[in-house]
Amino acid sequence: MDNHYIAGFVDGEGSFHVAFQRSDDVRLGWQVIPEFHLSQNVSSRNVLEVIQGRFGCGSIKENHRERLNDHTYVLVIRDRQDLTKKVIPFFERYPLHTQKKNDFAIFRQIVEMMNQKLHLSSKSFSEIVNLAYSMNANGYRRKVPKNEILSTLKSSETIRQNQLKADKI
Amino acid sequence: MDNHYIAGFVDGEGSFHVAFQRSDDVRLGWQVIPEFHLSQNVSSRNVLEVIQGRFGCGSIKENHRERLNDHTYVLVIRDRQDLTKKVIPFFERYPLHTQKKNDFAIFRQIVEMMNQKLHLSSKSFSEIVNLAYSMNANGYRRKVPKNEILSTLKSSETIRQNQLKADKI
Repeated sequence: MDNHYIAGFVDGEGSFHVAFQRSDDVRLGWQVIPEFHLSQNVSSRNVLEVIQGRFGCGSIKENHRERLNDHTYVLVIRDRQDLTKKVIPFFERYPLHTQKKNDFAIFRQIVEMMNQKLHLSSKSFSEIVNLAYSMNANGYRRKVPKNEILSTLKSSETIRQNQLKADKI
Repeated sequence: MDNHYIAGFVDGEGSFHVAFQRSDDVRLGWQVIPEFHLSQNVSSRNVLEVIQGRFGCGSIKENHRERLNDHTYVLVIRDRQDLTKKVIPFFERYPLHTQKKNDFAIFRQIVEMMNQKLHLSSKSFSEIVNLAYSMNANGYRRKVPKNEILSTLKSSETIRQNQLKADKI
């Protein structure tokens, strides 16, 4: 399987997605989770395995869809080290050509910002939210409206003040 | 755009389809129409143009879909000479890897049978129908049930007898 074949296949079938998840474990109250996804139905699961092998990372999971007998498999790569060192360099070398090329560029930018720990400040986190919601046709499939994240994001200032209060007590 | 990229992209997004159409212009009452299709939404129309240029054939048409503002474009290649001399050799050289690889093999077989004029006999036409209906997940998206074609196909024998009658009149 040629690497350019993989780029073409992913350009059609893959997706670069940045998810957000509420979490009490992080200071800002929300986690940012960049993910690479590639789905296929059971008859073409072999291609996912080859691509997983080529990237040297990721896991293949089964997805049951609403329609009966529609078993799909999805290759998911979520580890930030793997995204940074394996997935992103791959698509820099074997480029995409559709609109997904732009989504990939934003995805890469977000991963780089996270590698610089910028997602730990509320200001940069808001930037990441805006960038992420501009991806994949302006996030038309997203369930959580952007403002729900932006308005409930704990500001670094509030966190600092709460810490100061806690320190006093 | 690398040719292997095109193979990968088509493996995800393209389709090899064999349509059947009622027609009074042909002896058997049904026409067989092999087609190559590749759809993209408006933001990635450029990729269709590049692929059309690489193949050196086909036409790009606009498709309005049921949802509002969902403009898609489709590259269609239907000319049998183009399929035989351009499309089929391309995917022999730059292979597919999913289940579509099998669909392509059947598609090629049907085009070859047509090039040998086998679709003009009702026996081989029925074979073509059976082959075509085994493609693309056993034709689960087809609107016309296979038996509607097979049962209304005018047999070569009937046609010959009708011709003999007509000759006598």
